[in-house]
Amino acid sequence: MYDFRLDEVTAWIVGKQARTIALQMPEGLKSHGQALAREIERRTSGRCVLIADPCYGACDVDRRFTDYADVLVQFGHADIPSMQAGPNVLFVEVFMDMDVSDLLPQALPLLKGTVGVLTTVQHVKMVPSVVSWLESNGHHALVGKGDSRIVFEGQVLGCNISAVEPLKGHADSFLYIGSGDFHPLSVAIETDRPVVVVDPLMQEVRELGELRERILRQRHGAIVRASQAQRFVVLVSTKVGQSRMDMAWKLRRLLEDNGRQADIVMLEEFHPDRLLPYEADAYVSTACPRIAIDDYLRYPRPLLTPVEVEIVLGLRSWEDYRLDSITGD
Amino acid sequence: MYDFRLDEVTAWIVGKQARTIALQMPEGLKSHGQALAREIERRTSGRCVLIADPCYGACDVDRRFTDYADVLVQFGHADIPSMQAGPNVLFVEVFMDMDVSDLLPQALPLLKGTVGVLTTVQHVKMVPSVVSWLESNGHHALVGKGDSRIVFEGQVLGCNISAVEPLKGHADSFLYIGSGDFHPLSVAIETDRPVVVVDPLMQEVRELGELRERILRQRHGAIVRASQAQRFVVLVSTKVGQSRMDMAWKLRRLLEDNGRQADIVMLEEFHPDRLLPYEADAYVSTACPRIAIDDYLRYPRPLLTPVEVEIVLGLRSWEDYRLDSITGD
Repeated sequence: MYDFRLDEVTAWIVGKQARTIALQMPEGLKSHGQALAREIERRTSGRCVLIADPCYGACDVDRRFTDYADVLVQFGHADIPSMQAGPNVLFVEVFMDMDVSDLLPQALPLLKGTVGVLTTVQHVKMVPSVVSWLESNGHHALVGKGDSRIVFEGQVLGCNISAVEPLKGHADSFLYIGSGDFHPLSVAIETDRPVVVVDPLMQEVRELGELRERILRQRHGAIVRASQAQRFVVLVSTKVGQSRMDMAWKLRRLLEDNGRQADIVMLEEFHPDRLLPYEADAYVSTACPRIAIDDYLRYPRPLLTPVEVEIVLGLRSWEDYRLDSITGD
Repeated sequence: MYDFRLDEVTAWIVGKQARTIALQMPEGLKSHGQALAREIERRTSGRCVLIADPCYGACDVDRRFTDYADVLVQFGHADIPSMQAGPNVLFVEVFMDMDVSDLLPQALPLLKGTVGVLTTVQHVKMVPSVVSWLESNGHHALVGKGDSRIVFEGQVLGCNISAVEPLKGHADSFLYIGSGDFHPLSVAIETDRPVVVVDPLMQEVRELGELRERILRQRHGAIVRASQAQRFVVLVSTKVGQSRMDMAWKLRRLLEDNGRQADIVMLEEFHPDRLLPYEADAYVSTACPRIAIDDYLRYPRPLLTPVEVEIVLGLRSWEDYRLDSITGD
């Protein structure tokens, strides 16, 4: 099912003359870690260390590998080029070529006009064939390339859907290949166009209109709940590709200038329990934009995005609502 | 109850001309974090960032502060000098002067002969008065100074009870001032002398003989359970003062030389769930020595210390059993 591209990986390791290799991968791939380590050790003269901490994306590259290894290989994610992880980090996209031939005909009646095609990194190799299929079934299909956080045509991240930018005003609907709802939800909110999910893992097709409405109602509720908040805690991630400390200081200043109190709190893993020691009426997450949306109900106080703070303070109107994103150049 | 010594702290911050100050503290002090931050900001021209991640000791100093702050102040722990945390890290011991006058008379009948006095950093200021009290109640009292991981006379860490070394052959029993059983348990196993705990928080006195026997039986059981293990996972901590990668490589070599398989797995927070992706018959922890002992029952496979691996492999006898420790020079 997975292609770990070990020929490329071992050639890179040998080229680096690396003696100790740190291996990082997301939860879904970790059970392959030991076998990967043994195979890499067999093919190189190196020795491997498996990193067990959660890994949510390229944003989450574990920079501490330099303490004990010469290089780091992260499987399952594309590089975030603007993050500049350095010459001793290799990102190995793990592509999945899955059969969606039964699903595409189901998606067809939900699509309108010109279709923008989007996906996450593991499915980017499927984009050309999906485009061809759409073209041969009466739809003009478009694929865009995002900003400097993005490597592949059509690729989106949870924090970055800039691949839709060149398609705005051209695409009448979007087809998203992938599992999970967060990425296509961002597209639906950002573009206000129909977004159809073709999910190769669940082998199902779904449209996101209802979820979009539900999440927007929830976000509106969060803003209302936070409108009278006096004490804010602004949360910053230590993860290199999610860390927005400058934004946190600006938010603190903005909140204080508007008569609120704000503290800056740094954390590695976001978990409601970590916030128990701090007094707060509302939290603001400057980390991965998914956290405020996906984990909202787990927190005892409203968890806002930076955009939502502007609305709370009356500096932006609800009509200008956008999901948070972390953009490159 | 706590003295955060803010005069010293602010003088140090001002001397460093620090603009941004990261504040780290253990769970028990975190609820004071926001007030500390505001007071430090009031007294200096700096701004503070609160670190929400767990902090288990000076071993756990968060080196990533250099990404966003000029200096780090860690409250609640003494420096581990041999760790060399650097000139921009300040450790602020938070001393607690608690009344044990009702407890000492209860401890008296449990003590024998010459008494070694030990404690953790928050109670070191109480040592001289406890020594005086013992001397005036018919006991010779001794206080030792540990190795290069230790700052104060009589101070022990969970990973380091080297303060007992100069007392061996002299102390007939030990009096430990502090809460928790792990530190005095180490002393009981290491010295085979009676250890009496005077617990200022619980306001109780207890002797550790029974616990010592129970833990030794449990460790013997772990060794027996692991004796037929084929696949070992050797765990290494990313925490700077707990990280023993050289030892991990030696253990892997040792296990392989004795016909076992071993992988090295790195992690920040030790939690049984983190190990689910890995196939293993037994784990070996090279991190904080407390983990294998205190959290043993939470793990689905035997969790061994490095010393115990030697016994499993027949390279050390059970009669030479010792708890694991992390020693300095």
